[in-house]
Amino acid sequence: MSLVSLAHKRSALCSLSRCLTQSSLWSRGFASLPEPISDDQAPVNSKDGKVLHPDLLNEDFVGAEYAVRGELYLKGEELRKQGKEIIFTNVGNPHALGQKPRTFNRQVMSLVMCPTLLDHPKVAELYPGDAIARAKQCLSYFSGGLGAYTDSRGSEGVRKEIAEYIERRDGYPSSPNQLFLTDGASPAVRYMLNAIIRNDRDGILVPVPQYPLYSASIQLLGGRLLGYYLREDSNWSMDIPSVKRQVAKARADGIAVRGLVFINPGNPTGQCLSVENLQDIIKFCHDEDVVLMADEVYQTNIYQDERPFVSCKKVMMDMGEPYSKHELLSFHTISKGALGECGLRGGYVEATNIHPGTIDQIYKIASINLSPNTTGQLGMALMVNPPKEGSESYAQWKEEESSVMDSLRRRAQIMTDGFNACEGVSCTFTEGAMYSFPRLDLPQKAVQAAQKEGKSPDTFYCLELLEDTGILTVPGSGFGQEEGTLHLRTTILPQEDQIKEVMNRFQSFHKKFLEQYS
Amino acid sequence: MSLVSLAHKRSALCSLSRCLTQSSLWSRGFASLPEPISDDQAPVNSKDGKVLHPDLLNEDFVGAEYAVRGELYLKGEELRKQGKEIIFTNVGNPHALGQKPRTFNRQVMSLVMCPTLLDHPKVAELYPGDAIARAKQCLSYFSGGLGAYTDSRGSEGVRKEIAEYIERRDGYPSSPNQLFLTDGASPAVRYMLNAIIRNDRDGILVPVPQYPLYSASIQLLGGRLLGYYLREDSNWSMDIPSVKRQVAKARADGIAVRGLVFINPGNPTGQCLSVENLQDIIKFCHDEDVVLMADEVYQTNIYQDERPFVSCKKVMMDMGEPYSKHELLSFHTISKGALGECGLRGGYVEATNIHPGTIDQIYKIASINLSPNTTGQLGMALMVNPPKEGSESYAQWKEEESSVMDSLRRRAQIMTDGFNACEGVSCTFTEGAMYSFPRLDLPQKAVQAAQKEGKSPDTFYCLELLEDTGILTVPGSGFGQEEGTLHLRTTILPQEDQIKEVMNRFQSFHKKFLEQYS
Repeated sequence: MSLVSLAHKRSALCSLSRCLTQSSLWSRGFASLPEPISDDQAPVNSKDGKVLHPDLLNEDFVGAEYAVRGELYLKGEELRKQGKEIIFTNVGNPHALGQKPRTFNRQVMSLVMCPTLLDHPKVAELYPGDAIARAKQCLSYFSGGLGAYTDSRGSEGVRKEIAEYIERRDGYPSSPNQLFLTDGASPAVRYMLNAIIRNDRDGILVPVPQYPLYSASIQLLGGRLLGYYLREDSNWSMDIPSVKRQVAKARADGIAVRGLVFINPGNPTGQCLSVENLQDIIKFCHDEDVVLMADEVYQTNIYQDERPFVSCKKVMMDMGEPYSKHELLSFHTISKGALGECGLRGGYVEATNIHPGTIDQIYKIASINLSPNTTGQLGMALMVNPPKEGSESYAQWKEEESSVMDSLRRRAQIMTDGFNACEGVSCTFTEGAMYSFPRLDLPQKAVQAAQKEGKSPDTFYCLELLEDTGILTVPGSGFGQEEGTLHLRTTILPQEDQIKEVMNRFQSFHKKFLEQYS
Repeated sequence: MSLVSLAHKRSALCSLSRCLTQSSLWSRGFASLPEPISDDQAPVNSKDGKVLHPDLLNEDFVGAEYAVRGELYLKGEELRKQGKEIIFTNVGNPHALGQKPRTFNRQVMSLVMCPTLLDHPKVAELYPGDAIARAKQCLSYFSGGLGAYTDSRGSEGVRKEIAEYIERRDGYPSSPNQLFLTDGASPAVRYMLNAIIRNDRDGILVPVPQYPLYSASIQLLGGRLLGYYLREDSNWSMDIPSVKRQVAKARADGIAVRGLVFINPGNPTGQCLSVENLQDIIKFCHDEDVVLMADEVYQTNIYQDERPFVSCKKVMMDMGEPYSKHELLSFHTISKGALGECGLRGGYVEATNIHPGTIDQIYKIASINLSPNTTGQLGMALMVNPPKEGSESYAQWKEEESSVMDSLRRRAQIMTDGFNACEGVSCTFTEGAMYSFPRLDLPQKAVQAAQKEGKSPDTFYCLELLEDTGILTVPGSGFGQEEGTLHLRTTILPQEDQIKEVMNRFQSFHKKFLEQYS
């Protein structure tokens, strides 16, 4: 960067002027240094002989919190290493709890990974014909095979298949050039927040409760998190008045409100937003100049029929101008849905109505990482184009897919009913996504016991639950919750033969807990 | 983050106090907002109706430059789409230029990707026995298979294999707990820089010329890049006096010098550093409290016998205390070496002598991304433990491995000789890595023609080369070069049947260019 201009960077307003000075940096070489800073000394550089002392790290790096793998997870890992059986319901990681991948998808990936097999005389004895054909097609998307970097946005062939999938889903055009593939959806969210957040005067609206990727990323990027509430009493719908209050307050405090994040279906809250709720938020964000960030990674995890998933893009386009021209970033992944291919790390962001110059900037930043991993990209292609009806592998694929989805629907019901059967626990039905977020009404004695240990009451509760039952959950405080309320998040992912046992263990623990502290 | 404390964050010195206030954020809910900022208004939030207008993005996001996929690459892609044959020597991407993966590694990965094959009665007719056995072993490292998130540091089984590999290489202990696996080495570099850089008063020493991942990441993270020179006249060795000058200057200007990056073997410069040169820099960094960042991703790409690769860790340990206790971060990857598995995105950082509290903080930040992709992790295990001598697949693996390395050695010589045969071109021998970095002595008329187009002379030259020959290179100005010198970077990766033709094309172009502009 231009070292001279850097001294002023935090206050600089127009990025272009700096950009221009920068482009001449290399040809000037590095000899130049910033003008002396007279106002104070060099920052403290080491402590106890360590430059990388925890007290001397980037404060946002230290301050960022991620409860999904926080205190509870570390405690659970510790207990597991001591030989205790732990049920990891802290993170949406289906395969870790026994869910199987789609046979067809993995057959195709297996062939693309080892293309010499395609010429093997006996390949047809191990792989079905349509898997072989699909492997050859996918291989054509990766010149040099899976071992070569692709375009930094991801393979064009894969992006084409995804754009067609989006068009089929919404009935509106998409384009490979507005898609960026990433190693899971999380890096896509971070790219976008990194572009949006300029300094600690830029605010991003985030739901409460939220998925802590957002709070952690906003902090890492030095921005301001502006929480708006979801209304538990109306099935965790977005509370537009709360959004408006936060925006007004932020503006009064000199904060630019840059973006609004919503998660549909909800994590950790499991709601499916109504079209009306989406229209309200689109209208508001358009009128107030706020970019929409639609986290739609659970779009195929739907467990009720009243409110099927409708993408924010479709709702926006259906509304017509001016709303159909609003800036929207939509996120999707292979980690969720019925696939649950978390480990492959595949995701994308679709950038709708985003300025071409900004698309160029995002492309440039993506290129610093060269390319997303090719296996994840391949997995995305297979997600958006499964075997066609009538093809050799269709029946098996369909059977596998349905059995996962039907089972998840049953499990969503079992968990909700199980929690609601407990004294002092109330749980909204998991309409979508992969989580239950029951509300806990804990006795005063338990709250005091938690305070004595310097822990929030829900953390205290989840730790006791873990030690007693081996069930690893995440306290509501890790996601944010309205003052005076307590929750926990659990996935609905334990397999059906296990989940009743999990619920039994929870219920007897909860009974014991109430007895102990009342 | 604590919204209240954020207003002060840029000036806050102790991160711990903030950290404590943060942990109570969620339980307090989001209602609170920062105290009003009286000194000025809310920042500008949109332009021409776009919040994400290129003029209103994060200035470091816009300012970051990455020449490897910059103007030349985009021009090359444009010409390719117009049907012109382009030879992509801009990036170290071996498979894209025809290099083949190791058959054994891909067989193992193919099986792990589709584990049902392992129970198939005919699996042994497609896969050798040792690949099947290795697949079963690797599968045991991934509970839930490749579809499940691993520990955020990467699978413990894979980290164990890597730690043992490092011990065999250096003769000193390593541990899975000081290893972090990432999606290629680039994210590992960014994690570490993110932890180290606190604000624009923190400086990182980076070689000139350098790999632009460093300049781009330091800018994205808002730190200060402090360039030190490599001495072209002594085979691109580290110029310790230049390092010392930069440190003295930086301190005088109130900059904390936090880290020093070196790349060995060098990118783009191809040098292999001598043990003496490494000892000098280790001594200096220890005496001056500067963290060492050793980019050793090309450690197996060695094309001469005088200076075999020695890791910075081994040199440091051999020196004994106090140097053997110095803070060191070492980076490695599957993207380079004889494997060149760029697309899989596998890499690691080994954190030596790093404070345990800092390791915990890095682990926490890694957990926000849940886990590195599993295929890349698997690829790392296969890289550090290839087939053993005597095993069924050893002969073929060895033959494939050697043919790549022998050919690279020949190609390094062909490129160097080819460049040196040209008038006004001088090129140090590519001792290691994958690049030639010839110095160009361009006629004054060419420099003027470049200025007329507002381009640096080396960019002008590389663009003409691209349009005339289809050879896509990167101008030296993209890596940094001493004032008044001009270079270009090309990989040595075109296959041998191609590379002589590439060099012929270059030579006739260069001749034409000199005639045209002299």
